Amino acid sequence: MLLPIILSGGAGSRLWPVSREALPKPFIALPDGETLLQKTLKRAIALPGVENVLTVTNRDYYFLTRDEYESNTESDSKHIIHDYLLEPVGRNTAPAIAAATLHACRKHGEDTVLLILPADHLINDQSSFTQAVSTATTLASQGWLVTFGIHPTAPETGYGYIESGEALADSISHKVARFVEKPDLETAKTYIASNRFTWNSGMFCFTAGAMLAALRQCAPEVLSAVEQTFAATGLDKDPVVLDATGFTLAPDISIDYAVMERADKVAVVPVSFDWSDIGSWSALAELVAPDDRGNRTSCETVLVDTDNCYVQSDSRMIAAVGVDDLLIVDTPDALLIAHNSRAQDVKSVVARLKLLSHATVQHHRTTHRPWGTYTVLEEGVGFKLKRIVVKPGASLSLQMHHHRSEHWVVVSGTAMVINGEREILVQRNESTYIPAGTAHRLTNPGVVDCVMIEVQTGDYLGEDDIVRLEDRYGRV
Amino acid sequence: MLLPIILSGGAGSRLWPVSREALPKPFIALPDGETLLQKTLKRAIALPGVENVLTVTNRDYYFLTRDEYESNTESDSKHIIHDYLLEPVGRNTAPAIAAATLHACRKHGEDTVLLILPADHLINDQSSFTQAVSTATTLASQGWLVTFGIHPTAPETGYGYIESGEALADSISHKVARFVEKPDLETAKTYIASNRFTWNSGMFCFTAGAMLAALRQCAPEVLSAVEQTFAATGLDKDPVVLDATGFTLAPDISIDYAVMERADKVAVVPVSFDWSDIGSWSALAELVAPDDRGNRTSCETVLVDTDNCYVQSDSRMIAAVGVDDLLIVDTPDALLIAHNSRAQDVKSVVARLKLLSHATVQHHRTTHRPWGTYTVLEEGVGFKLKRIVVKPGASLSLQMHHHRSEHWVVVSGTAMVINGEREILVQRNESTYIPAGTAHRLTNPGVVDCVMIEVQTGDYLGEDDIVRLEDRYGRV
Repeated sequence: MLLPIILSGGAGSRLWPVSREALPKPFIALPDGETLLQKTLKRAIALPGVENVLTVTNRDYYFLTRDEYESNTESDSKHIIHDYLLEPVGRNTAPAIAAATLHACRKHGEDTVLLILPADHLINDQSSFTQAVSTATTLASQGWLVTFGIHPTAPETGYGYIESGEALADSISHKVARFVEKPDLETAKTYIASNRFTWNSGMFCFTAGAMLAALRQCAPEVLSAVEQTFAATGLDKDPVVLDATGFTLAPDISIDYAVMERADKVAVVPVSFDWSDIGSWSALAELVAPDDRGNRTSCETVLVDTDNCYVQSDSRMIAAVGVDDLLIVDTPDALLIAHNSRAQDVKSVVARLKLLSHATVQHHRTTHRPWGTYTVLEEGVGFKLKRIVVKPGASLSLQMHHHRSEHWVVVSGTAMVINGEREILVQRNESTYIPAGTAHRLTNPGVVDCVMIEVQTGDYLGEDDIVRLEDRYGRV
Repeated sequence: MLLPIILSGGAGSRLWPVSREALPKPFIALPDGETLLQKTLKRAIALPGVENVLTVTNRDYYFLTRDEYESNTESDSKHIIHDYLLEPVGRNTAPAIAAATLHACRKHGEDTVLLILPADHLINDQSSFTQAVSTATTLASQGWLVTFGIHPTAPETGYGYIESGEALADSISHKVARFVEKPDLETAKTYIASNRFTWNSGMFCFTAGAMLAALRQCAPEVLSAVEQTFAATGLDKDPVVLDATGFTLAPDISIDYAVMERADKVAVVPVSFDWSDIGSWSALAELVAPDDRGNRTSCETVLVDTDNCYVQSDSRMIAAVGVDDLLIVDTPDALLIAHNSRAQDVKSVVARLKLLSHATVQHHRTTHRPWGTYTVLEEGVGFKLKRIVVKPGASLSLQMHHHRSEHWVVVSGTAMVINGEREILVQRNESTYIPAGTAHRLTNPGVVDCVMIEVQTGDYLGEDDIVRLEDRYGRV
């Protein structure tokens, strides 16, 4: 049995202003509209024999992840069973993989073949991917811890490298001679020339039993922290939320350091499909076809004497005059203009914004909630305006605010509203008024999205003025 | 008697995306918050002996101009009387000045000294300006048509030049030897070297009688078209709206061509104060003090390895990485990024947008109306959201829409609302609903702005679905 394990997390601060703490890299839409997470799921469930998928992610991303998965109709029609291990804090890949391993042993047995897939990889060649996984699965069943080594197309200094040792019986794979850290350019060039090195993709394949043994041998402190976490965790709940006290004590260490570099029986399956971890806006720009002046755009633009620019915007008209080699990325509340050669340094913008505690580090104007989304359209003195979209069948918590009143106008779909003692159906072009201090709840009883405009008034309009009286998503 | 005549018009397409057809250059706020028009008025009424100001502008800008003037408290406290001549179409400076001259003759007599001030000039040195006007006034009273020649600080190719002839009795001024069109760079350099040339500022000073005589002699076709216009115009109305049929027939010609270059007694008062017509974003950028890397910003920015950039935004966080010499101008619906050396070419962006009939050529998200402003906050399928700000005492027309219903929520101030048969007072945090087909009117009975959020729903939400039943601004 093959169990894909999707590791989804990471900030992706080099893709600011689109990626934010509340919407990291796996969740941002690529030019084709799909997210890296959706593509990762698609790639996983297209593999033969996959019936279960285990996702390890931060608990903050649980509903967002579920939303992404639910938009994949294949997952539905193949009756894929989704399990989740939710991390209370990020602790790098070793603890995450240890938890996934324990979970798999418990639920599916030690012979289960685990395929570790980071959620921020882009691989378009499904058949080569399937072929590589098949090779890896065979090795895994023989007890190998398998890595996937990407055929290097350039002397990249941003990746780790794997040196191949002796060839294995399948005439494809090799024993790993050694792992190397991100090299300098000269070293990287010698690696490429030697033909013995591949990029360490961060994807792995092994049986649960082999990883368990390797953890016991190479990283007992990781294993024991995760075992203690499991002992304090409600493992039969759905989703499984890892015990915070235990998991926080797990060492912050990668699986490469903790296990792969130390274990005995480690193999590399060399692959030559196109692979990217979309590490910067330059990488993302590559996904859009250039025009005859090298400009790549996915929005309304007027470009005058402008060459080799990437331009992305939600809704604004972007005009450029006499500029070259710029990355221009526009969002409702923040704009980035970077020279293409400096794409990696976008992370220093985020670092500075963090020092300023600037809102654009954490959130977009649109916030995802288990029941749908809300978007702040305008904030003025004494009022705030939101567009609220509630998914069919979903329901906000029964709640109350001390300091604000709310006017609700339904502009699309239908809302069932509890407003104090009354329960009323509010249809398109109808409104209701919720005075401060009144318990209220919004439910979408219909089969299409309910879109509502909320006009808040009051002297204090912070999101923390909310008393949740009842919530179907466990947020009381 | 000295009568300042403010000529306010012109598109200023080189200042897109801030200047738009509905908000041309005189109306855009400079970094200090004042508009060029406000500054022009301030400069005019600070001159000794000014009791009246005549403004010639397009009728579309009447309410906007009045709003600007009303924000000048000095104008109020000095009891300045404002007259307006409103043009139905733009016809360049000769017809505008001819109309102003006829108006001045009629109202104040032929001896009135007229001071022509384009509304888009920036002059900070009031005392030098006052001094120059005093010199010009003396000459004007002697029958001279006076120009103001700016001491050239560089061989500009974008301005016309005035060559000085023999010195006049005041030992300051000169007879004009000739006017020259925008020269090429080499020619401009010889002008600067010769010390005999000044820039033609477009400001003029003369008596109404002298201009009338000069028009009769040099540009009889302009004078007769404007005389015919006056004959068909209600001259005692306030404001005076020039007859469209007559004014449309006036030649489209500048006062320089039509009169100044041909008249006999033309003088130049050389001045050396700082003067700018804010011809581009580069000129506007100069008004903001640079930081130690030459960046000039007036908004939230994070600049990493960025030099000599100008950054302006209403509300967005602007981040730049590794870029130089850019003009970055951000508005709610359009963004401009131009190389500083290409500031003049912003007009080609506007030319292309015109071909696309793009909304950002004409309007901002915020539209000025006689009663205040409205701002489109969001447009979705079947709904549109506006913030409406009504000035104290102001009133929208009594109106009706065929295709849309409106929910009104007052978030600041108070509204008196006619809603069908009812007349109700809607206070902060109260709302009312206007069904399609119902006559309605919004009035602000208070002494502070009334801010209202309007949620429109309907299948057609165009601004042209409006039946005005009654309007105090003559728009029925």
